[in-house]
Amino acid sequence: MQPRGNELAAQGRLDATFAALADPTRRAILARLATGQASVTELAEPFDMTQPAISKHLKVLERAGLIARDRDAQRRPSRLVGRPLAEASEWLERYREFWGSSFQRLDAVLDELKTARKARPAVSRKR
Amino acid sequence: MQPRGNELAAQGRLDATFAALADPTRRAILARLATGQASVTELAEPFDMTQPAISKHLKVLERAGLIARDRDAQRRPSRLVGRPLAEASEWLERYREFWGSSFQRLDAVLDELKTARKARPAVSRKR
Repeated sequence: MQPRGNELAAQGRLDATFAALADPTRRAILARLATGQASVTELAEPFDMTQPAISKHLKVLERAGLIARDRDAQRRPSRLVGRPLAEASEWLERYREFWGSSFQRLDAVLDELKTARKARPAVSRKR
Repeated sequence: MQPRGNELAAQGRLDATFAALADPTRRAILARLATGQASVTELAEPFDMTQPAISKHLKVLERAGLIARDRDAQRRPSRLVGRPLAEASEWLERYREFWGSSFQRLDAVLDELKTARKARPAVSRKR
């Protein structure tokens, strides 16, 4: 099975998005940018990281298309881009029926217990 | 800011889940397992990969908790576990307001065009 060109591109985007999200600092940077755009200096401070370390993470996020940076402004603020997150979410949604499976199994067990209880001779509930 | 123990564990699970999903073969294996459990032999065939290569991917998926393998059965079938996908989806959901931003921008442009059109002198629609 040979995937078509646009399918390959979509796969590549998902690869980059999931890889970028597989790091707690990068997820925290996105959480910060969800509250508004920020410069590298502003991002470095709360994370107690050097600016070069933050810049490396920003490059990964930018390559994945998860952030965009203003080329003109001197502080080059970063802002969140939601589209790749939407594509990742869309992929995960396909497995929604499996999300609750442990609860569904628990429900099945409880139903079975109820049936078993009804099948037994009734126990008096009077004191 | 020092994250608590259970927060750290949740972060680690997200790291592992997103890293495991950052590979097209592993995503395809999960898609196959969504249709039912499968042995390594059954998984290797459609992917045109060797069994050791598939086994490596299965190990990554198993460590991330995305699959479980039957230790007793000789063919050790793998099955999909949905819970980590639910946690990843929950994380992405927080950014839902950013997903549609490009469509929102398009809406704004269309509204502007409509307003501009109304402001112009009406053109006769008769032939």
